[in-house]
Amino acid sequence: MSKPLILVTNDDGVDARGLAALIEMVKPYGLLVVVAPERSQSGMSHALTFAQPLRLRRVSKTEDISIYACSGTPVDCVKLAMGHAVSDTPTLLVSGVNHGSNSSVSVLYSGTLGAAAEGSLYEIPSIGFSLLNTSRNADFSASIHYGRKIIEKVLEDSFHPRTYLNINIPKLSIEEIKGIKLCRQTDGTYREEYEKRVDPHGGEYYWLTGTYINNEPDATDTDEYFLEQGYVTVVPVHPDMTAYEELNRMKKTWGSL
Amino acid sequence: MSKPLILVTNDDGVDARGLAALIEMVKPYGLLVVVAPERSQSGMSHALTFAQPLRLRRVSKTEDISIYACSGTPVDCVKLAMGHAVSDTPTLLVSGVNHGSNSSVSVLYSGTLGAAAEGSLYEIPSIGFSLLNTSRNADFSASIHYGRKIIEKVLEDSFHPRTYLNINIPKLSIEEIKGIKLCRQTDGTYREEYEKRVDPHGGEYYWLTGTYINNEPDATDTDEYFLEQGYVTVVPVHPDMTAYEELNRMKKTWGSL
Repeated sequence: MSKPLILVTNDDGVDARGLAALIEMVKPYGLLVVVAPERSQSGMSHALTFAQPLRLRRVSKTEDISIYACSGTPVDCVKLAMGHAVSDTPTLLVSGVNHGSNSSVSVLYSGTLGAAAEGSLYEIPSIGFSLLNTSRNADFSASIHYGRKIIEKVLEDSFHPRTYLNINIPKLSIEEIKGIKLCRQTDGTYREEYEKRVDPHGGEYYWLTGTYINNEPDATDTDEYFLEQGYVTVVPVHPDMTAYEELNRMKKTWGSL
Repeated sequence: MSKPLILVTNDDGVDARGLAALIEMVKPYGLLVVVAPERSQSGMSHALTFAQPLRLRRVSKTEDISIYACSGTPVDCVKLAMGHAVSDTPTLLVSGVNHGSNSSVSVLYSGTLGAAAEGSLYEIPSIGFSLLNTSRNADFSASIHYGRKIIEKVLEDSFHPRTYLNINIPKLSIEEIKGIKLCRQTDGTYREEYEKRVDPHGGEYYWLTGTYINNEPDATDTDEYFLEQGYVTVVPVHPDMTAYEELNRMKKTWGSL
């Protein structure tokens, strides 16, 4: 039997240590085609490029792993991979390992998860991995260990093709992590502050800073809760953004317009 | 009583005709603060900028309308507006009018809707408007007419603060449009094709093209269905991307990991 094809991407760029960790995680399971951004595309969400052309550069090729760098966003990487770098539909798409958390509403801003969402639109089982550690020297061994457990489960019992998985790994060792929890996205918000500075020519500019606010700090079924408890979290997410409850309420109260 | 504060943005940029139409639509209802991107940010989704500083330029100011241009994405416009251009929480956020459809899964890629999603995270009732016409000479009169009906309804009976509205207007005259329909997001996909070209120096590059595929062409309760029938569509959407049904299924079948 031929090995399954696995499409690999990220948002931190083709040189990121998290991508190397992801390749290490998934290489026992198939033939890898890696299409990752040339440069960091962190915070690029589901952005795509259509006003500029894209470039695709082959970085390296061995029997089992082909690596390409794409000039665009994570979503562009997936689209261009599907159009030009793979010949069959992949068995699996993996994105990450992101250097930093993508729990709660970060799923909206994240390029790592943007790529996974795009995979789900191609009906490829897609998984985004993020480690709660932004250090350059972050230890990815727990990500690889628990990531493999999840991938083995997915290869055995997959999930709805229009769903993708948002996986976060706490900043703990393999032994310290308590296990893996399926859970829902926390209702949270970033409240931004911008630090105003003045450039050498007198022009003002603003740097984004900000604080995360958990809108449901007492909930015990959210990704934020389980991460704090020391678990790896798995949130199944989907591209249908319809707010059904609110749709039903509005149908009753709005009447005809 | 003081007039309500309305925050206005878009993704086509501060000079877009759709933004002028949106200002025209909402100016009877309050004091406007407009913070729109300096340049087109179409397809930028929920992307935000943190690796670069942002600039904010005041374009014009009258008694009722202040206009600023921001160097970042639509989400940056909302964040920077909340941090530096408005002093109170706005009564309403409006984004658009986008030059082109944002029905179905386009909600994921759209900068127009990214800005509205960001507004919902600030618990501001937020609405994205899109006209199904990409022509430079598009007629926005039906958008203004039906947009005002919806805004008047929202000012009278608002919606859940963690919800925002994705509104699409068909390419028809005021008289031809049949009415306004509340409905759900269509399950659809873009299947991309990339046109490969060769630059004058021999380098290959790729232009995105692509075809929209409606995965449920027989459904009669979707935004695509009602747009084809000649209705303005209103889809309430929300930033909770959890796939609850799949979460429940997986909890049963995955067991402990």
